[in-house]
Amino acid sequence: MSGSTLGNIFKITTWGESHGKGLGVVVDGCPAGLSLCEADIQEFLNRRKPGQSKFTTPRKEDDTVEILSGVFEGKTTGTPISMIVWNTNQKSNDYSEIASYYRPGHADYCFDEKYGFRDYRGGGRSSGRETIGRVAAGAIAAKILKQMGIEFVTYTKSIGPVSIDMDKFDSGEIANNSLYMPDADAAAKASEYLSQCIKNKNSAGGICECVITGLPAGLGEPVFDKLDANLGKAIMSIGAVKGFEIGDGFNVANSMGLDNNDAFCMDNGNVVKKTNHSGGTLGGMSDGSPLVFRAAFKPTPSIASIQNTVNKSGEEIEISIHGRHDPIIVPRAVVVVESMAAITVLDSLLANMTSRLDRIIDFYK
Amino acid sequence: MSGSTLGNIFKITTWGESHGKGLGVVVDGCPAGLSLCEADIQEFLNRRKPGQSKFTTPRKEDDTVEILSGVFEGKTTGTPISMIVWNTNQKSNDYSEIASYYRPGHADYCFDEKYGFRDYRGGGRSSGRETIGRVAAGAIAAKILKQMGIEFVTYTKSIGPVSIDMDKFDSGEIANNSLYMPDADAAAKASEYLSQCIKNKNSAGGICECVITGLPAGLGEPVFDKLDANLGKAIMSIGAVKGFEIGDGFNVANSMGLDNNDAFCMDNGNVVKKTNHSGGTLGGMSDGSPLVFRAAFKPTPSIASIQNTVNKSGEEIEISIHGRHDPIIVPRAVVVVESMAAITVLDSLLANMTSRLDRIIDFYK
Amino acid sequence: MSGSTLGNIFKITTWGESHGKGLGVVVDGCPAGLSLCEADIQEFLNRRKPGQSKFTTPRKEDDTVEILSGVFEGKTTGTPISMIVWNTNQKSNDYSEIASYYRPGHADYCFDEKYGFRDYRGGGRSSGRETIGRVAAGAIAAKILKQMGIEFVTYTKSIGPVSIDMDKFDSGEIANNSLYMPDADAAAKASEYLSQCIKNKNSAGGICECVITGLPAGLGEPVFDKLDANLGKAIMSIGAVKGFEIGDGFNVANSMGLDNNDAFCMDNGNVVKKTNHSGGTLGGMSDGSPLVFRAAFKPTPSIASIQNTVNKSGEEIEISIHGRHDPIIVPRAVVVVESMAAITVLDSLLANMTSRLDRIIDFYK
Amino acid sequence: MSGSTLGNIFKITTWGESHGKGLGVVVDGCPAGLSLCEADIQEFLNRRKPGQSKFTTPRKEDDTVEILSGVFEGKTTGTPISMIVWNTNQKSNDYSEIASYYRPGHADYCFDEKYGFRDYRGGGRSSGRETIGRVAAGAIAAKILKQMGIEFVTYTKSIGPVSIDMDKFDSGEIANNSLYMPDADAAAKASEYLSQCIKNKNSAGGICECVITGLPAGLGEPVFDKLDANLGKAIMSIGAVKGFEIGDGFNVANSMGLDNNDAFCMDNGNVVKKTNHSGGTLGGMSDGSPLVFRAAFKPTPSIASIQNTVNKSGEEIEISIHGRHDPIIVPRAVVVVESMAAITVLDSLLANMTSRLDRIIDFYK
Repeated sequence: MSGSTLGNIFKITTWGESHGKGLGVVVDGCPAGLSLCEADIQEFLNRRKPGQSKFTTPRKEDDTVEILSGVFEGKTTGTPISMIVWNTNQKSNDYSEIASYYRPGHADYCFDEKYGFRDYRGGGRSSGRETIGRVAAGAIAAKILKQMGIEFVTYTKSIGPVSIDMDKFDSGEIANNSLYMPDADAAAKASEYLSQCIKNKNSAGGICECVITGLPAGLGEPVFDKLDANLGKAIMSIGAVKGFEIGDGFNVANSMGLDNNDAFCMDNGNVVKKTNHSGGTLGGMSDGSPLVFRAAFKPTPSIASIQNTVNKSGEEIEISIHGRHDPIIVPRAVVVVESMAAITVLDSLLANMTSRLDRIIDFYK
Repeated sequence: MSGSTLGNIFKITTWGESHGKGLGVVVDGCPAGLSLCEADIQEFLNRRKPGQSKFTTPRKEDDTVEILSGVFEGKTTGTPISMIVWNTNQKSNDYSEIASYYRPGHADYCFDEKYGFRDYRGGGRSSGRETIGRVAAGAIAAKILKQMGIEFVTYTKSIGPVSIDMDKFDSGEIANNSLYMPDADAAAKASEYLSQCIKNKNSAGGICECVITGLPAGLGEPVFDKLDANLGKAIMSIGAVKGFEIGDGFNVANSMGLDNNDAFCMDNGNVVKKTNHSGGTLGGMSDGSPLVFRAAFKPTPSIASIQNTVNKSGEEIEISIHGRHDPIIVPRAVVVVESMAAITVLDSLLANMTSRLDRIIDFYK
Repeated sequence: MSGSTLGNIFKITTWGESHGKGLGVVVDGCPAGLSLCEADIQEFLNRRKPGQSKFTTPRKEDDTVEILSGVFEGKTTGTPISMIVWNTNQKSNDYSEIASYYRPGHADYCFDEKYGFRDYRGGGRSSGRETIGRVAAGAIAAKILKQMGIEFVTYTKSIGPVSIDMDKFDSGEIANNSLYMPDADAAAKASEYLSQCIKNKNSAGGICECVITGLPAGLGEPVFDKLDANLGKAIMSIGAVKGFEIGDGFNVANSMGLDNNDAFCMDNGNVVKKTNHSGGTLGGMSDGSPLVFRAAFKPTPSIASIQNTVNKSGEEIEISIHGRHDPIIVPRAVVVVESMAAITVLDSLLANMTSRLDRIIDFYK
Repeated sequence: MSGSTLGNIFKITTWGESHGKGLGVVVDGCPAGLSLCEADIQEFLNRRKPGQSKFTTPRKEDDTVEILSGVFEGKTTGTPISMIVWNTNQKSNDYSEIASYYRPGHADYCFDEKYGFRDYRGGGRSSGRETIGRVAAGAIAAKILKQMGIEFVTYTKSIGPVSIDMDKFDSGEIANNSLYMPDADAAAKASEYLSQCIKNKNSAGGICECVITGLPAGLGEPVFDKLDANLGKAIMSIGAVKGFEIGDGFNVANSMGLDNNDAFCMDNGNVVKKTNHSGGTLGGMSDGSPLVFRAAFKPTPSIASIQNTVNKSGEEIEISIHGRHDPIIVPRAVVVVESMAAITVLDSLLANMTSRLDRIIDFYK
């Protein structure tokens, strides 16, 4: 049960390794009638493309997507959409050495324990390239949601000690800097910090934040399939994520009820909340406010500094990982976070159509 | 799709409302041959029982479990185990008033939006009593895991500003104080803090931590069903949880690769890690180190202070919630967190049996 | 993975053994707003009640259902509906002998091989009483479908060599005879045949047929979740069913394309079929014609004749099964077949709401 | 929810249309360590290849499979195996006419009703080519099962009125004739019958039978996931199948208990059955005897005779379908039936590993 399928109605199945023939995804359960072409997908994939700044690997990865099924005459047909990105720039010999030992912070050891051996080339299935399928599927989910007025703003909130200043928040700035930060000053400081990391053969962690607007109230299912629980799983399933929080998140632990509760009030005849400490969910269902969540990414584990580890013969050795590695994961992961959120929200939105008998009867009239 | 089922092999389905006839769970996929009696379950249920300290609701809830199926001659048969706890002390008139308005911080509004109306008595399905089914199932999962050497230590890490001092960590202390803190001094301070909260008609948040030892390496499935992703979902699905983190969690955002990576070394012929920043998972699989995660709980939303809200007629009103409410959720949620973790780990452990062909062939020989 | 959960959106989980405390079902994903009371369920359960004719076991089983959750003020709330039927008339000593040997035609041997032991009282989980949960859930599904104009006529088509004469088909007759046959003459003949079976300490098989009208076209999902495939699973999962066919069924094997194809024509502006060899599905989707399927039930395996078998010590022995057993399974299974069909159709109908983007967008407007 | 995923542990997701770029499957949950190459898959695919006799379409379809992921150094890695067959010989203009009307016996009308439009080229997703993904996955499942001593013999049992004579059954003959019949005389007669069908611009139906040997007892889960129920779904999901039966199948309806029950006896210290009316399952679990089931296939709906139908403008018209169509579906479907059976049996076999606690504890020692 290698767990490569996610979702209940809008269901995605990804496949592929870093240095295999390619990577891809099958999107099953996409509603029929969506205008869709490869450019829609490519736009999302380009946001995770390396080689766009000095802080991303200089590997040239074209990552051109091809749609193989499920679209006819420019529209989705309701049948599975299979998409592929061919691996074109992989050099397996770069990685031959790591076959023999376990890189700290990587999944090498666990793969060997679980499966008996592993495709060690570029990390195999646990490579960051695994996210290609997620992003291709996310592009479709996001396109559907946009037609329903649901939109995403996702960005780098912090890199190492450098956080954005919410007072200077400028969403237009996100695409302007290669770190995807909505604050040009913070981006400049983070850039300096990362230069220092590279110089020190080290790497940095950071936080990604996502804000979703336009959600109707009531999405998500009480108990286990809460909207925040499913988001939590979707986001925690991204490699290198070590924490997930919604709304005030871990800060609620030191808050008090009177401050943390969001008062309801009326706004033009609608029930709204005065504040949004909840981050847009109550009881696991969307509450009509913007949904706000964050993910913490660990520093890139592949670093050029000398590290201690063991090899497969059980010898303690020293290694130093060279090659083309980003010193920070967050910027390229921004679109992955957005994609996983879009997939989860769409799945909840479809599931929610069956919650009331009167609406079902109306639907079939 | 109201999402009351969790798990793939060890699968639980919970049901019940705060003031209905009872609450329960069906555990399907429990292996045959486990010695099981009601006392095994009761022991876990008693850990979430109210009325044990001045900081838990004085409601008397006996919460006596009855096993209805799946156990014969003292052993599980492999068929579904149905368990029920009858509601015996519920007074619906306590809650009649809240039918008309939306309590801040509660799911009332979302239930109405999603389903058109709600069982308002005691919060209905979104009551804390919903966790009874989780805990009953968790008791079974934990009993199985214990026989395989996998054990849990779960406790209150912080209440409001009061955190335990890891240097004074004493697991024996956990059951000694009604706050389930492994540090008697912290417990005393937290107790004072909570008294102040009550006096101020307010409530507190906190953090629960869980440490799991004895896990073999390799549990969890790469990509979407990572062990940490499934744990994230299981824990985020508990009411009032707003954040989940594993290992160093959100602190990784400001760490550097060389510090965050855990070096591998040899210990008596075994591969082990020198540190455990990862919290026991790499690439979504258990790495052989203790699994360590935390959950952030928001302050109890039901408080006696005056709050602004709206009623179902769309009028802005002031309310003050009286009744029997804990000023802090964490202590009684400790066993819920442990239960959800046990259910998730057991499900991963069962799934992992099918990962290697050689082991499957051996199994059927 | 003992497989006691069925359905994707309208999801049922059954539990219970013949001689345990009771049997029940949790229905999760039932839409909110359905008027529902115990009498709705009881009406269905009464159709499977024994003791209604000389051909059903004289065991007195009251089988009174109790709804434990998910209904508030007479309407479903959208949360799980837990229902229970207590076992009140079980005498375990009736069955003590069968603990030691394997009854031919029963699951005893397989249970021991799979689980290491079994609850032998009355067949435990593999008793016909297991269907109580299915029928209780089916009553809900059928009530919802009826409000959408979808209705079921289910009946005994044949018992041993006695088949109904379709020219004499009278649906009003079904409830008039204890064999649930829509043809009084056939019922009389079948009655004689069964009397002979009892006299000979033997039992009979038969066929159940179900006709579903009012289905919109398009229900069912191409490829694996075809409407007929899901019906096939649901019906084959009923104990004693050895065959399932839809429309002309096995007769298609000796038909020819020109005869078997149903020509389309226009009827008052609607596309309809002139014939219904397909039985109401094309390509796995409902085609707007009545859905017609049949299930073949084997003869009751518990018979008073002497049979050869082995005991748990590996000795060959002769046995003769006494006790209160029906000589024919079909009549009491009619409502079980209808229930499984209703559950499957409702699940398909809910899933089908997400098939087109334009309808989804309309729904959320 | 277009239902293109099947299985719980060994999970397959298929995609692709008759005249799209290609068709494929992602196999997730395949155990690691299986030797696998494209030739293993090709051998199965070649069994469904057209153009092998005068009764299969003269279309030249190379159907060469390519493995894109999940195999490294000749062995499966435990990660998803993505396989693709490119469409190379499709001429869309062959089919342009059928865009405007609904072919009798085809899914055209249902697709339009469900999705609003359809990929009409060669039937799109409802083409027989959809089975390519099933067969590619089945080849893997069958290879694993063979290593465990579980083998399949699958063949054409009847074509129209011509049935094989079980006394002349010769499994070696199956691959010798293009009809996959294990009886050369029957094959000759069926061949004549089919020639007559073609001459008459008509088509024939038939029955496929599958015998599985080497199954351990206990596979399959009581209640909904019975082995026969899951097989029933898997087989009924194949296009053109209208009936499924196991063991004596529909004949049990006219059998009696004493004849239908299979007596147990001892054979070299093992419990075995003297007969196999059950077809290898009792209570939904394998009983150690060969598993025997049959599927009824309707006649090919595409025929050259004149048929009545309607077009999308609601006009009644006459059509005659020309093109390259087999007059019989069964022979090429034999390998599809075997594949679906292998996938289902393997999934049950993996699930069964978790049925007993003592075995689980042993496994992890």
